[in-house]
Amino acid sequence: MPQAPFVPVIPAGGAGARLWPLSRRAHPKFLLDLTGSGASLLQQTLARLGPLADRAPIVVTGVEHVEAVTAQVQSPVADAVPAPGTATSAATTDPRARILAEPSPRSSMPAIALAAALVEREEPDAVIGSFAADHLIGDQDAFAGAVTAARRAAELGYLVTLGIEPTRPATGFGYIEQGAAKTLAGSTAADRRGAEAALRAVGARPVARFVEKPDRARAERFLAAGTFSWNAGIFVVRARVLLDELAAQIPGLARGVRDIAAAHGTAEYDDVLERTWPRLTSIAIDHALAEPLAAAGKVALVPADFAWDDVGDFAALARQLREAPAAGTGAGGGPAAGDGRGDVQVLGAADVGALSSTATVYGATDRHIALVGVEGLSIVDTEDVLLVLADERAQELSRLVAGLDEQGLGHLR
Amino acid sequence: MPQAPFVPVIPAGGAGARLWPLSRRAHPKFLLDLTGSGASLLQQTLARLGPLADRAPIVVTGVEHVEAVTAQVQSPVADAVPAPGTATSAATTDPRARILAEPSPRSSMPAIALAAALVEREEPDAVIGSFAADHLIGDQDAFAGAVTAARRAAELGYLVTLGIEPTRPATGFGYIEQGAAKTLAGSTAADRRGAEAALRAVGARPVARFVEKPDRARAERFLAAGTFSWNAGIFVVRARVLLDELAAQIPGLARGVRDIAAAHGTAEYDDVLERTWPRLTSIAIDHALAEPLAAAGKVALVPADFAWDDVGDFAALARQLREAPAAGTGAGGGPAAGDGRGDVQVLGAADVGALSSTATVYGATDRHIALVGVEGLSIVDTEDVLLVLADERAQELSRLVAGLDEQGLGHLR
Repeated sequence: MPQAPFVPVIPAGGAGARLWPLSRRAHPKFLLDLTGSGASLLQQTLARLGPLADRAPIVVTGVEHVEAVTAQVQSPVADAVPAPGTATSAATTDPRARILAEPSPRSSMPAIALAAALVEREEPDAVIGSFAADHLIGDQDAFAGAVTAARRAAELGYLVTLGIEPTRPATGFGYIEQGAAKTLAGSTAADRRGAEAALRAVGARPVARFVEKPDRARAERFLAAGTFSWNAGIFVVRARVLLDELAAQIPGLARGVRDIAAAHGTAEYDDVLERTWPRLTSIAIDHALAEPLAAAGKVALVPADFAWDDVGDFAALARQLREAPAAGTGAGGGPAAGDGRGDVQVLGAADVGALSSTATVYGATDRHIALVGVEGLSIVDTEDVLLVLADERAQELSRLVAGLDEQGLGHLR
Repeated sequence: MPQAPFVPVIPAGGAGARLWPLSRRAHPKFLLDLTGSGASLLQQTLARLGPLADRAPIVVTGVEHVEAVTAQVQSPVADAVPAPGTATSAATTDPRARILAEPSPRSSMPAIALAAALVEREEPDAVIGSFAADHLIGDQDAFAGAVTAARRAAELGYLVTLGIEPTRPATGFGYIEQGAAKTLAGSTAADRRGAEAALRAVGARPVARFVEKPDRARAERFLAAGTFSWNAGIFVVRARVLLDELAAQIPGLARGVRDIAAAHGTAEYDDVLERTWPRLTSIAIDHALAEPLAAAGKVALVPADFAWDDVGDFAALARQLREAPAAGTGAGGGPAAGDGRGDVQVLGAADVGALSSTATVYGATDRHIALVGVEGLSIVDTEDVLLVLADERAQELSRLVAGLDEQGLGHLR
């Protein structure tokens, strides 16, 4: 079993422009219940991590979302999360989660590093695990097992990621290539073999490299090779290791978050944060740490075979709803399936009548929605915006959303 | 020039279920401005016929639509219709149109026959022309020329129809096959040749037969043959000829409408109407008169090459809007065409943003409508119903609408 206390970190940022108009700037994706489960993605993430945490999870979010995040953390859904048995952090005001406000978006590395710096100040050897606030994960037991293995690998000093077993040649995800003993850090071959054996003993593997989203042909080669996993953006690492490695890569960033953490709990905190934060390098953890550390043989991977999706666009969401029919499907009226309705998923209260249609409908109004002969559409019906989108073009939505401001429609974002 | 006075008759019935939810039971197709012209289909029909009429047109409509029809007839748009110069009918209360109320729908023959009976009572030799209230016609001059020719052929004693030059192998329309001298009524071959020459002299031709909507292969043969026209449901005939022929085919129906007409203008009218109307045979003029008279060599056709459409469903409407860009197109916001918008027609006030989309949008709310990558869709956005329909399945809409009642959604029809 792992020895070091485990503190989940949840960077909750990103509007999710490819899920507009469900997601808006003021009400981003992580605050949404996209699957009709009764809990938002953030609440599901907290519920998933609660039983694994030794300390209250830290949610890092934009200052404009602190109020909404606080409300969701304190809601009855979040109450259902088992409280971490040993949570004792004096700094938290809510035992279910600590919420850190980012004065402005600086990508994921500053957010995670700030949380790591707070943890390091309190318990330098603690292991943090960073998990996106807006992903879906299917199997809690498999997830818990993989996190436990990752904590043990992190205690060996590695930056550890979970590698999701790919089930199709997805082009919307990044990939991780498994390495071998020789790719690990170590001054001799024997050292490296020993390091690999130690990783294997806890259920982990060396990582050779991270790969950006591939095109279709490359994704098919990755799938065929059997040595590539999907990158779910999950990182498990000792707080001190993360900050020391970051100090070697981007010294100012590590120094900045340690300065802010040093002021936490004091009267100067807000001043230090406001002064320091805007000067931190805006960079994703992938580029700041994961890629350079993989090249240096300091990244390990725990193979994980639970269902996972970043629900990055409406095509992904439609797939999720189709594969997990317990979620939102079957709601709505209309002729029964055998009566030529087709394959229509309904999320929300919408009353949907359909003939010969394949579609996913997100109904946020009390309007009746009728579909005839449509194929592969996502339809989002809200009070001020109606979206009709071909799932196969789902990635293009962000371009349309980006154009709203210059059309004087910025209030709809 | 024609000699007999000409009285247009406009049966205004039929909800237009394949244009739901634009058309509703309480607000049927003929009351709608489907093309953004500023005038409803009924108003356009009246405006088209006004300059040709010698007496006020007669609109026959369901009792529940009399109020709405009256309002449209009297609206500023209808005021723009040139008043018939010689309109003198004492029975009319509005010089722009006489409105006859049907107590219940009995298909087109009773409606047209009742109007014919009223005309016959006032001017037995007058020629009536029956025109649907909800069709679109493109070229007023060509239309006027064809009607004038049809009036002259009607004065020869024929039931005359306009045969629209087909421009594609449409499967949604009925067809009319041209005949020759031998198909005309006449006791000798010389009679028949003479009759044909008389028809040709006024620009008309014999009709061999009426054909119901064909399948695609048959429609292609019709188009290739060059002797088939589209049946626009336009009939021009002397009032007395229509009723005498009807008396031979369905005596009770002719007697019934003559009884009602005899009571018109008296205190007994409503009683006679209420008592007689429900007993009239519910039948379309095509089956009651056009088909049997064609078989008897008593139907003539005036070839007409103006643009015509019955706008029977959303596919037809989309085609109309696309071919007549002056109508509703170009409204709405969104990126310009050159910016990847695609081909989006907008009718109504809807503000539409589109990327790579082919669609027709009918916006009756102030919501922003966003389209991404959709092809061949019609989208109707109203306060209580949203319809998304694949144009190639447009005919199936009536099946969905027919199912609303049993789903407890009859109030949406």
